[in-house]
Amino acid sequence: MKSYSLPAGKKILALSGGVGGAKLALGLSKILSPEQLIIAANTADDFEHLGLSISPDLDTVMYTLADINNKALGWGLAGESWNAMDALETLGGDTWFRLGDRDLATHLERSQRLAKGESLSAVTAHLCRRLGVSHRIIPMSDDAVRTKVTTADGELAFQEYFVREQCQPAISDFYFDGIEQAAPQQALMDLLASDELAAIIICPSNPFVSVEPILRLAGVRDAMRNSAAPVIAISPIVAGIAIKGPAAKMMTELNIPATAIGVADYYGDLLDGFMIDNSDQSLLPSIEQLGLDVCSEQTVMKTLDDRIALAQATLAYANRLTQKTTQKTTQQTLSAVADTSGEH
Amino acid sequence: MKSYSLPAGKKILALSGGVGGAKLALGLSKILSPEQLIIAANTADDFEHLGLSISPDLDTVMYTLADINNKALGWGLAGESWNAMDALETLGGDTWFRLGDRDLATHLERSQRLAKGESLSAVTAHLCRRLGVSHRIIPMSDDAVRTKVTTADGELAFQEYFVREQCQPAISDFYFDGIEQAAPQQALMDLLASDELAAIIICPSNPFVSVEPILRLAGVRDAMRNSAAPVIAISPIVAGIAIKGPAAKMMTELNIPATAIGVADYYGDLLDGFMIDNSDQSLLPSIEQLGLDVCSEQTVMKTLDDRIALAQATLAYANRLTQKTTQKTTQQTLSAVADTSGEH
Repeated sequence: MKSYSLPAGKKILALSGGVGGAKLALGLSKILSPEQLIIAANTADDFEHLGLSISPDLDTVMYTLADINNKALGWGLAGESWNAMDALETLGGDTWFRLGDRDLATHLERSQRLAKGESLSAVTAHLCRRLGVSHRIIPMSDDAVRTKVTTADGELAFQEYFVREQCQPAISDFYFDGIEQAAPQQALMDLLASDELAAIIICPSNPFVSVEPILRLAGVRDAMRNSAAPVIAISPIVAGIAIKGPAAKMMTELNIPATAIGVADYYGDLLDGFMIDNSDQSLLPSIEQLGLDVCSEQTVMKTLDDRIALAQATLAYANRLTQKTTQKTTQQTLSAVADTSGEH
Repeated sequence: MKSYSLPAGKKILALSGGVGGAKLALGLSKILSPEQLIIAANTADDFEHLGLSISPDLDTVMYTLADINNKALGWGLAGESWNAMDALETLGGDTWFRLGDRDLATHLERSQRLAKGESLSAVTAHLCRRLGVSHRIIPMSDDAVRTKVTTADGELAFQEYFVREQCQPAISDFYFDGIEQAAPQQALMDLLASDELAAIIICPSNPFVSVEPILRLAGVRDAMRNSAAPVIAISPIVAGIAIKGPAAKMMTELNIPATAIGVADYYGDLLDGFMIDNSDQSLLPSIEQLGLDVCSEQTVMKTLDDRIALAQATLAYANRLTQKTTQKTTQQTLSAVADTSGEH
């Protein structure tokens, strides 16, 4: 495979939720140096449980890049043991959120460091360093944002809905508690304002509960629009189903078509380009009708090669979009020059 | 073995630290019903670690009575795994206090319940119930008392001294932070004031850091003196060495003879009877010279039978002391009657 080479000094920003986003983030990390890639992860599904501060999406990305993630489960650590959970069950404790013995160490260390006043980004940087992750993973914010889901069963914290209730209750609404007060991560804002930014990649994560919280942080959406770098989203919905998680079910319940078109329409003019799966090629015209640039690739990532190939394809797409914009700008400049010339 | 039968309605109070105390507590639990035995455990070596509330002595007694204690290590749980600790080491966390995976569940559940406002005694009762411990184990106090040890290396929390520093630094002093403000457990005070109390047994635990904190709680020492029940201590020092823990080393450093005599002298007139090991029989005259009733038994408990035998011997000794007191009281009453008669 020919390795994509990003121009010197250029950087890629990836916005990620959990599993799906982490797969693409891993692919990107295999073709980009630690200086070339920053992954901003959703923290709105973080929660406090058993007295521990748990950051599911951050950990999924971190464990994935450290190559210690549990590929069978899709969360947690490979080769995990469950002795603490078993003992907790004996003691009548809460065991619906399964924390493996090794995974517990991550939460113990994070919780302790946060309690001592360290920021979530400092803690994440520390954990990544200890796990040998050299690419930079940053929480979207150091402030607490908590997704709350309104269901027929009442309001639930996201993990209660997602894990405890197995996404069974129908969703009528959701909101991000604390989003108004939360400051976006400074490194994220700095990168969005930087000329070095070559592309903003919205990973194939849940648009509503994984990506939206990042976009809702004060100034992020405007900074993305104002950035010269193209914004590309990869559809997490393929052939009408979500590869992982409740995105498709949520879309249906929220009266959004559970298709790549629904996702494209949801992101709307925030995007410069949208990528769908080859199996959804029939949707290309409808998405183009939304006024979006769109392409299709093999977006379902089963193997590491798939992840790397999608990363390559995404960067190549970003490059095409950049050149198109440059051409357009050049043409505009030329015609402006022509117009000006004509005036003389 | 002939089972000791405590008179109906009578109760035994055992004051216990960790391992040594737990052994005798287990023996007592095998010959006394849950209604006949209350074990008050030291909590001055409790501490907060990794954000968890840890009660080493309480847990040792609880795990021992649940028969899930690690007999090889002398602390923690049998068949324990250490995956969380191993992972924590990778993350650069504190691992000097080894918390097994199953043991972690105890501390997670306790910490959470305390954080929700439950008392330590309520949490302990819950944990005991879940672990099938039917005999009552109560923390000496629901309030925080923390043993601080003054050493050549400065002041250390007890577990730092005991576990992290392996009792290496020489002790010049120690104190119990919070002891003045801590209320003794109400169930303990009620029992000490009760006519139902048949004996107060000070288990073979460290007199300075395991038993002394209980005795220092407001009113406990007076209540013990005022109780009609005999107070018996079993020497934790046998042949000049501590069966477990740093008691002998501490005694030497505190200029107290590291012998059963030193222990007897330390408890002094709080005791009605003192029990030493058969191997220390040569010390009997010296201890009697202190004005104490003393007996010798096999106090070193290697097997469950040893634990039960010592429990039997202790209760039998308590019974002998009670009868002696009753005879004395009867004689005093008789001579008082004689005196009164003479006056007429």
